[in-house]
Amino acid sequence: MSRQRLLVIGGDAGGMSAAAQARRIRGEDELEVVVLEQGEDTSFSACGIPYWVGGLVGGRGDLVARTPEEHRRRGIQVHTGTRAEAVDLDACRVTAADGRTFDYDHLLIATGGRPTRPPIEGLDAPGVFGVHRLDDGERIRAAIDALPSDRPGRAVVLGGGYIGLEMAEVLQHRGLSVDVVLADPLPMGLLDADMGERVCAAMRGMGMGVHTDQAVREVLRDADGRACGVRTDQGTYDADLVVLGLGMGPEARLAEAAGLGIGVTGGIDVDATMRSRTHENVFAAGDCVQTYHHLTGEPAHVALGTHANKQGRVAGSVIAGRPARFAGVLGTALTKVGDLEIGRTGLCTTQAETAGFDFRTDVVEGTTRAGYYPGAEEIAVKLITESGSGRLLGGQVLGGQGAGKRVDVLATAIWGRMTAEELSESDLSYAPPFSPTYDVVAVAARVVSRAERG
Amino acid sequence: MSRQRLLVIGGDAGGMSAAAQARRIRGEDELEVVVLEQGEDTSFSACGIPYWVGGLVGGRGDLVARTPEEHRRRGIQVHTGTRAEAVDLDACRVTAADGRTFDYDHLLIATGGRPTRPPIEGLDAPGVFGVHRLDDGERIRAAIDALPSDRPGRAVVLGGGYIGLEMAEVLQHRGLSVDVVLADPLPMGLLDADMGERVCAAMRGMGMGVHTDQAVREVLRDADGRACGVRTDQGTYDADLVVLGLGMGPEARLAEAAGLGIGVTGGIDVDATMRSRTHENVFAAGDCVQTYHHLTGEPAHVALGTHANKQGRVAGSVIAGRPARFAGVLGTALTKVGDLEIGRTGLCTTQAETAGFDFRTDVVEGTTRAGYYPGAEEIAVKLITESGSGRLLGGQVLGGQGAGKRVDVLATAIWGRMTAEELSESDLSYAPPFSPTYDVVAVAARVVSRAERG
Repeated sequence: MSRQRLLVIGGDAGGMSAAAQARRIRGEDELEVVVLEQGEDTSFSACGIPYWVGGLVGGRGDLVARTPEEHRRRGIQVHTGTRAEAVDLDACRVTAADGRTFDYDHLLIATGGRPTRPPIEGLDAPGVFGVHRLDDGERIRAAIDALPSDRPGRAVVLGGGYIGLEMAEVLQHRGLSVDVVLADPLPMGLLDADMGERVCAAMRGMGMGVHTDQAVREVLRDADGRACGVRTDQGTYDADLVVLGLGMGPEARLAEAAGLGIGVTGGIDVDATMRSRTHENVFAAGDCVQTYHHLTGEPAHVALGTHANKQGRVAGSVIAGRPARFAGVLGTALTKVGDLEIGRTGLCTTQAETAGFDFRTDVVEGTTRAGYYPGAEEIAVKLITESGSGRLLGGQVLGGQGAGKRVDVLATAIWGRMTAEELSESDLSYAPPFSPTYDVVAVAARVVSRAERG
Repeated sequence: MSRQRLLVIGGDAGGMSAAAQARRIRGEDELEVVVLEQGEDTSFSACGIPYWVGGLVGGRGDLVARTPEEHRRRGIQVHTGTRAEAVDLDACRVTAADGRTFDYDHLLIATGGRPTRPPIEGLDAPGVFGVHRLDDGERIRAAIDALPSDRPGRAVVLGGGYIGLEMAEVLQHRGLSVDVVLADPLPMGLLDADMGERVCAAMRGMGMGVHTDQAVREVLRDADGRACGVRTDQGTYDADLVVLGLGMGPEARLAEAAGLGIGVTGGIDVDATMRSRTHENVFAAGDCVQTYHHLTGEPAHVALGTHANKQGRVAGSVIAGRPARFAGVLGTALTKVGDLEIGRTGLCTTQAETAGFDFRTDVVEGTTRAGYYPGAEEIAVKLITESGSGRLLGGQVLGGQGAGKRVDVLATAIWGRMTAEELSESDLSYAPPFSPTYDVVAVAARVVSRAERG
């Protein structure tokens, strides 16, 4: 076989995982691996930006898992500052913004996610910040440093998903007063309402303003054209900074313009090998793709570095000739706001309804440690379970330190198609510093299985 | 049906769970529930004793989940200070130490565990303490309070299982210098040696003496006959207190003397409904029974409140006429010493060998949080996996805060008969304050599945 070229568009998690995996399997004499990255960084942790802004992480470099130079030393040709402008699927050629062209045998598109930006007047004003790339973090940090010193700074965060919550937390941590403005009735829309209410109460308990069910009409600007507040259908909120946490869709414009098939979620339509369903030498990975739900098989879009890494590795394997499949997602998510840890996995009530399941929901409260052990904190577990079969469909966990990671037990049980009864019988660990005699996850499962037996 | 009587011997986890469950299902007009308890407490947490000694738990009462009076208010007749001396299985009658007799229709034996006490000279001396009942905790606390104030106190802990480790930790926390003396080559015998070595190193790093591979010859006594040291085949260790953490066997002497079948582990031989295999109206639950391993089906003895509770509930259900089964144990255990959290589940290497599995072991190191996030600590995960099938057989986890409870993910995966590949694909949570992009548990599973594919 003559030497082939894998061309990768996008040098973050999905793209670099694919590049590295293909390189691991095929030597440079067999496969040339070329990456086009529009920015200056590769393999960076966008998820770490809030904590960098919050001063918990030392520097920008800490968020870069592997630099372009490190990739190059591993035999991957990385072109930073090189934005792919067009893909010619027939000619197998990509044209960059600077006019250079790159031919390929295999193409991997990893253009990532696109932060949701509704058509609101003033959203492009200086002082309005996304939380997407490391430069965004740099800009927010600079804006905080430039705040007037004669009064506390004020921030408005638009959106109550996990980026919104994390930014609200770190901005407060940096001394700003924070208002979170949501179009939804509650923060964390992937939780059921009863659990979302607890999150909302915790945020208010931290002293944040949480303004729900409000449609943003305008970002207000001062005489210099700089953002100075947000006007909604119900009020006006002053701001030195406006931060966007309105969610993330797939960035599939380049793929779509080239004529690649796009799925119902707006992501690039790929099969479980990450291969385009319409063009067999084109693959895609990461936040730009449409993936599928492990439980239902339904199309899904979840922007998360973990999936991007796995998908990239699958694509890289397949391109290099080794079989691999991506097994789908459960929508597991974990975050925190203040001392409240928030985890969810599988189907929430709305998703279970949409998927047509006959199901029940149960909420159980407990403590994170033995009740008598110092630092025992409240924890609530909600389970969504298929009626009749008792099969676990989804779970949500809220509580103090140690609560959040318990969602992994639920994710594992759901992944393994276990029933609530099986989970209740399973041998989960017990020691006073870590849980009561029965971990609350097992208690919740027992409550379900007892109810299911009638 | 005429009113029947359930007689329960032993008022701790196993006994009271059975009593309470039977009472829940059957009213007092149908079933009389009578409990004989030799001590003054019911439903207490022996697992909490170390932390009470350590001053982390306020008082003795905090360790009592439910007092005799609370049980009585729920329609259970509790006789404290009443030690069952003999059981007449033919006459269905129990005789107490004070000569009273109690007839029964159903008998539940929950006599608990018996701390291992090897025949060592001086082991009965004042100043030698078990860690079994609340009175033990009281006595240790009194002994610490009575220590001379002109020099630091000294404790020798015999045994390096979890009670030994926890007692060593809390005694050090109370200001004593601590020597741990083991017959085994390493502490935590249910870990593989490579993991046990890490525990040993951590204990030494805390400033404890850890003296392994030493046979205790004698507890030394002062002129008053009080313990003042421990002599082994290799040395002598001064002590104001000697604490026994040599493990726990089943306390089945009463059952054995009555003629009940005893299993190979020394525990009462019961089926999965907790019914004696030799006497159909006799049940047993808790640390006194022989149970079975969920993976192998082999007989097992594990002394743990969680199992006692579950087994008691199963027995109470079955006695009350409702079908129930105990699903066995994986031997999941969790503890900590200092800042090192220690979890294990399923089969360790020795157990996998004994069970005849063809297996592989893999150890993976990582961090508990994203490497750049404050408080990220080291974590090591060891997996034992069946060769060929890739089925998970066992797991061990060591590391800093947040490491230990990850053993529950492994316990759940093993319970659900998942393969390493399935676990590696599963959707475990990610957020920088909680784990790196891939949780180390998933990384370990991936390493195994990659190696298995060859």
